[in-house]
Amino acid sequence: MSPAVTRYGHTPLEGLPERVTICEVGPRDGLQNESAVLPVQVKAEFIARLADAGHTVIETTSFVHPKWVPQLADAEELLAAITPRPGVRYQALVPNERGLDRALDLRVRDIAVFGSATETFAQRNLNRTVASSLEMFAPVVARAREAGIAVRGYLSMCFGDPWEGEVPVAQVVHVAVRMMALGCTELSLGDTIGVATPGRVVALLDALADAGIGTGRIAVHFHDTYGQALANTLAALRRGVTTVDASAGGLGGCPYARSATGNLATEDLLWQLEGLGIATGVDLAAMVETSLWMARQLGRPSPSRTVTALAGGGSRDGN
Amino acid sequence: MSPAVTRYGHTPLEGLPERVTICEVGPRDGLQNESAVLPVQVKAEFIARLADAGHTVIETTSFVHPKWVPQLADAEELLAAITPRPGVRYQALVPNERGLDRALDLRVRDIAVFGSATETFAQRNLNRTVASSLEMFAPVVARAREAGIAVRGYLSMCFGDPWEGEVPVAQVVHVAVRMMALGCTELSLGDTIGVATPGRVVALLDALADAGIGTGRIAVHFHDTYGQALANTLAALRRGVTTVDASAGGLGGCPYARSATGNLATEDLLWQLEGLGIATGVDLAAMVETSLWMARQLGRPSPSRTVTALAGGGSRDGN
Repeated sequence: MSPAVTRYGHTPLEGLPERVTICEVGPRDGLQNESAVLPVQVKAEFIARLADAGHTVIETTSFVHPKWVPQLADAEELLAAITPRPGVRYQALVPNERGLDRALDLRVRDIAVFGSATETFAQRNLNRTVASSLEMFAPVVARAREAGIAVRGYLSMCFGDPWEGEVPVAQVVHVAVRMMALGCTELSLGDTIGVATPGRVVALLDALADAGIGTGRIAVHFHDTYGQALANTLAALRRGVTTVDASAGGLGGCPYARSATGNLATEDLLWQLEGLGIATGVDLAAMVETSLWMARQLGRPSPSRTVTALAGGGSRDGN
Repeated sequence: MSPAVTRYGHTPLEGLPERVTICEVGPRDGLQNESAVLPVQVKAEFIARLADAGHTVIETTSFVHPKWVPQLADAEELLAAITPRPGVRYQALVPNERGLDRALDLRVRDIAVFGSATETFAQRNLNRTVASSLEMFAPVVARAREAGIAVRGYLSMCFGDPWEGEVPVAQVVHVAVRMMALGCTELSLGDTIGVATPGRVVALLDALADAGIGTGRIAVHFHDTYGQALANTLAALRRGVTTVDASAGGLGGCPYARSATGNLATEDLLWQLEGLGIATGVDLAAMVETSLWMARQLGRPSPSRTVTALAGGGSRDGN
């Protein structure tokens, strides 16, 4: 427990879970969207620091072709450089069967596939229709599940799309149901451009529950582009969600969607959860140190407000 | 209504008010804490733009001695330069009877007094004890009320204090009750250093209600130092609060408390409220334009995430 938050106490709020699992997406979703390309040793140290801080789910890298994501071209070397900790799940993004083969060769036990709720983003990000992307995922998910591997399904643009505007709830549910029917074990709802507000979050969760996808299989993935990520998180937790994606220090965004900067920073999320007395197992002080270290590697300050505030020392040392 | 938000629709959430009044604190609380000192004509134009955008409560300036707040030394000239609009309340901060005399001379109809929930901050900010500051306010509030003037009571450090750590709820209630007993017509609960989380907000509101201060007389004043302001706002609205303080473009902070940067930006608040279908009467697009204009006057970008996102044009023009 961080000294910072302890000084300001914990006050629970009715209707919230006692424990939340953070899916730390910094090494993949974060670094993929930074312009700097880091050495593999730095990435391996980053992942080790995240595990040291208490993370139990870490998205490590991607098997997307290096032509598309040069930042993660070292997936094989990186996974070989990680010393797995007991109790920690190291996820890797897998776009297709070729990616799955590479992941299986490296004994990856947790993969993720990446879908879109809108046709425009599917075209721009995956270069195919939504239906065609689901066809591409089908054998990936089936083979992974046969091998006993957990499969997270990312679903992008669940709230708004920069080209299509508001994305109807029914359209999101339609794609979500198909992804789960393929065999995904978890669905991460992405607000890729950060436009969601809490009512829309709850409406989508309710519609997914009606369609048979309960909050036990759902994660939320909010971006802080408009500053809404933590209010949306609060609304999702009240509705029963217990897995929240966040990126150390607020690393990354989405290069294919304008204004899509601003993954929710893990530290800002931790400040909220610790203040509410919700356990995560992740140490805030260790995360702040890690994100300050990563900011030095990238040569730019962390966009996380909590990292910035605590780096100043104002609230931690009592002066 | 902004084209930006309309494109992403409105989805209400149960238990929230239909309408919220924003108290726009940019010209006083915001500019007081900027290092630049702006010409009086710029401030007058700022206030006119805020009224044009639809604000009905605008905190304009302060009658604190210019020695302490040189940024607002032009209070008399500024108030003379404002052409009041019907239906708009122009508040001014008044620290003592001398300040009240100046305000009355200028026909100010809305004043605010400024208290502290902690002894350390009272000493540092007001140079006196909490009890002595209340004695100083007593004749100010009494004379103002006799003159038919509304008196907002600001209460700082309602959640945490950088020197004292967590501030007990009972201590905040103790000071709050005394401020209301003096005759304040509204109480603005300040999270001066931005450390609050939603459970603590609700606990304080409940304790104040038990002490006879209902949400109808309460405003919330959150800082975004740790990124918590909008989640706290959501929790407060659910508990019945309908007045929220915010600062155009996120101007200002508090120079006497370390790490106290980050007034909640009016635009970030508007993005949330519009997305929830909560009426404010304030136009988001006009606010973004005003805050971009003010950023040019100050020679630095706005810290508001919504201003930054919409200035890029990504979500507004659909590209």
